Amino acid sequence: MIFVSRQEHFNAAHKLYNPHWSEEKNTAVFGPCANKNYHGHNYNLIVTVSGTPDPETGFVIDLKKLSRLIRNEVIEALDHKNLNLDVPFMKDKMASTENLVIEIWNLLEHQIPKITSFGKLHSVKLYETPRNFVEYFGPEHSAL
Amino acid sequence: MIFVSRQEHFNAAHKLYNPHWSEEKNTAVFGPCANKNYHGHNYNLIVTVSGTPDPETGFVIDLKKLSRLIRNEVIEALDHKNLNLDVPFMKDKMASTENLVIEIWNLLEHQIPKITSFGKLHSVKLYETPRNFVEYFGPEHSAL
Amino acid sequence: MIFVSRQEHFNAAHKLYNPHWSEEKNTAVFGPCANKNYHGHNYNLIVTVSGTPDPETGFVIDLKKLSRLIRNEVIEALDHKNLNLDVPFMKDKMASTENLVIEIWNLLEHQIPKITSFGKLHSVKLYETPRNFVEYFGPEHSAL
Amino acid sequence: MIFVSRQEHFNAAHKLYNPHWSEEKNTAVFGPCANKNYHGHNYNLIVTVSGTPDPETGFVIDLKKLSRLIRNEVIEALDHKNLNLDVPFMKDKMASTENLVIEIWNLLEHQIPKITSFGKLHSVKLYETPRNFVEYFGPEHSAL
Amino acid sequence: MIFVSRQEHFNAAHKLYNPHWSEEKNTAVFGPCANKNYHGHNYNLIVTVSGTPDPETGFVIDLKKLSRLIRNEVIEALDHKNLNLDVPFMKDKMASTENLVIEIWNLLEHQIPKITSFGKLHSVKLYETPRNFVEYFGPEHSAL
Amino acid sequence: MIFVSRQEHFNAAHKLYNPHWSEEKNTAVFGPCANKNYHGHNYNLIVTVSGTPDPETGFVIDLKKLSRLIRNEVIEALDHKNLNLDVPFMKDKMASTENLVIEIWNLLEHQIPKITSFGKLHSVKLYETPRNFVEYFGPEHSAL
Repeated sequence: MIFVSRQEHFNAAHKLYNPHWSEEKNTAVFGPCANKNYHGHNYNLIVTVSGTPDPETGFVIDLKKLSRLIRNEVIEALDHKNLNLDVPFMKDKMASTENLVIEIWNLLEHQIPKITSFGKLHSVKLYETPRNFVEYFGPEHSAL
Repeated sequence: MIFVSRQEHFNAAHKLYNPHWSEEKNTAVFGPCANKNYHGHNYNLIVTVSGTPDPETGFVIDLKKLSRLIRNEVIEALDHKNLNLDVPFMKDKMASTENLVIEIWNLLEHQIPKITSFGKLHSVKLYETPRNFVEYFGPEHSAL
Repeated sequence: MIFVSRQEHFNAAHKLYNPHWSEEKNTAVFGPCANKNYHGHNYNLIVTVSGTPDPETGFVIDLKKLSRLIRNEVIEALDHKNLNLDVPFMKDKMASTENLVIEIWNLLEHQIPKITSFGKLHSVKLYETPRNFVEYFGPEHSAL
Repeated sequence: MIFVSRQEHFNAAHKLYNPHWSEEKNTAVFGPCANKNYHGHNYNLIVTVSGTPDPETGFVIDLKKLSRLIRNEVIEALDHKNLNLDVPFMKDKMASTENLVIEIWNLLEHQIPKITSFGKLHSVKLYETPRNFVEYFGPEHSAL
Repeated sequence: MIFVSRQEHFNAAHKLYNPHWSEEKNTAVFGPCANKNYHGHNYNLIVTVSGTPDPETGFVIDLKKLSRLIRNEVIEALDHKNLNLDVPFMKDKMASTENLVIEIWNLLEHQIPKITSFGKLHSVKLYETPRNFVEYFGPEHSAL
Repeated sequence: MIFVSRQEHFNAAHKLYNPHWSEEKNTAVFGPCANKNYHGHNYNLIVTVSGTPDPETGFVIDLKKLSRLIRNEVIEALDHKNLNLDVPFMKDKMASTENLVIEIWNLLEHQIPKITSFGKLHSVKLYETPRNFVEYFGPEHSAL
């Protein structure tokens, strides 16, 4: 079992704002992240696939294909977008990194087997800033 | 002459959109950067002061004071903001990194002498992404 | 289960010196790290909390609160300090990154539930230099 | 159980080329990576050892010794080399990062106990570029 | 005058070998860099253009256009190539970073005015590794 | 004229403390940097040499030789040391990054011509932390 990773990035605007709350409560909870006119980030995304190498190529997955898949399925939908307004799969969800990483998992999980028969999606890691980041290992993974 | 630098950062939304142009021309020139709902970045800002060290402290400038100055004068105005809507000094200007760095110079130039008598503002460098960045040495600096 | 991380940093002096050994043995084992007048590092600390997102905020943990907690409980005790002389919880312990990371876990473990009911401390990772680092998952974690 | 890591690096040339295939198939599968005259990378290698600290030193493993071991056993064999032509243990294997990381595991696994009695090899992580990397936890590790 | 920069990268093989010297002298001078089967690097390239912003766009140069130009003129010629064998403009030159950066300047200098009328090429900086790099300001620049 | 740079690093303890001042004034001016038991940093040092390439090697300076020179002349004196107590050339000077960078210039300036006849010392840049750094171009350089 080998874990193979590819990093991509996208730039997006968002705000953290719960529409069921008053503006006061939003500001109290989210502080400047609730700014009604949005702020934004350079997101860094690391997608990891686990498997055993194909003996003919030495690859668990061709990273050029994985890069293209991530760009087609994820970056296209998120890059230079407003996460609250422009992204259908984030509709009616808080635009947190936690929720984003689950959606990115869902976008990729069933696509990976189409580009490799030697591996499957293992984790999705998303840096909102160099100092704030989240990682998700899918719905079947529970705490160690 | 020694050059002393401090790095700070802020997160902001913006779009590149010239209001005197049609939407078509904006999209043709700026591409996804013209997205009407904005996108955003983690900006990294490096401010450099040049001078000779104060013999009593060994400092050209106290970097704790420079950090506080940058945060009060610049970060407060830009962090978790929309550069097109929330920032008075960017009103009626294209929200490009080039224009931003000139405004940051103007915010800091006359404040530096208030916190050191051994140095003056030398340059302002601003990373919009790790791969796109600009630097400005003030209005009196011409090309070498 | 999502893993949410926050990076903070501190600068400290230390030496590696076992008081039960001769100076010769200390130098033989620890080399320049045993220098009696200390040396120091810019430590980078990554704290990871695991849990499921609060549906109202989208957060496993509010990273502003986690940042404040780490700064109050850990950075305050370690930043601009001498790990051998100034830090009560390192008294009579070797000032190694391994021992430090266990103590940081102990400082944080019971504080995390006070700032989130959706997650718990998962790991503490500490970079002594960009090339030397350790990670600890708590006393209940054994090797895979 | 604490996980202690050391990063080293090496620079090498390689190509991805399956000698059982035609040149056309190699180019179709590997693209520019199949360039017959080779290309190359600055590889970054992170070796992680897991264990409990020696109470006398505070160390799971002395990182100076681990650094020296990695340099003697791995870097010496790979640095400024052509992975396809100069490295005996890569003979008749595809020069992929996946295959390389398995060989590095094999070079180190039985050497670690010679320099510490408190830990054993936990993982080998290898960055081919900052955006493409693999990790291996040994033959006994299966997917979670 | 504002300085605007774009970073791109390429991966290449090379060796340092003077054909007018004996193999012994090559090894004595260049050490492992003279390995006859080549080694390689992940090169990072930063191109800086100086000028004043176009008032209509806020840009000295459109960084998407600069990125495309660098990729067409430089990266295409160097990425996944052997600098000694595959690159016409390095023929009969030592494949040093110094010589490479001069050639990259020559490739770009006259192309920049075709994509902006507000700036001109200011410098080319090339990282062979994160710790070894060179910068060139063109043939008309002399030491300060 | 080409500018060639090499990065090295060292780890050191220091404090900022003016012995002609009271402890109160030291604390008021230097804050936690005045901690009597010291703190420390991972310093990163970048040395730049300017010149024209030797046509026989393609080098302004052999970076292996420059690395060895920096390690012999600078790193040996500073690594795993206390800048206030262990370093003769910092005796009776404030242990600021500004003063350190001038001393490093003085250590290197006259050594560079011994290892290359094609270049001379251009600048010394020293990172005390990733966010605080200074650069020095020698005593003959004045502000632009």
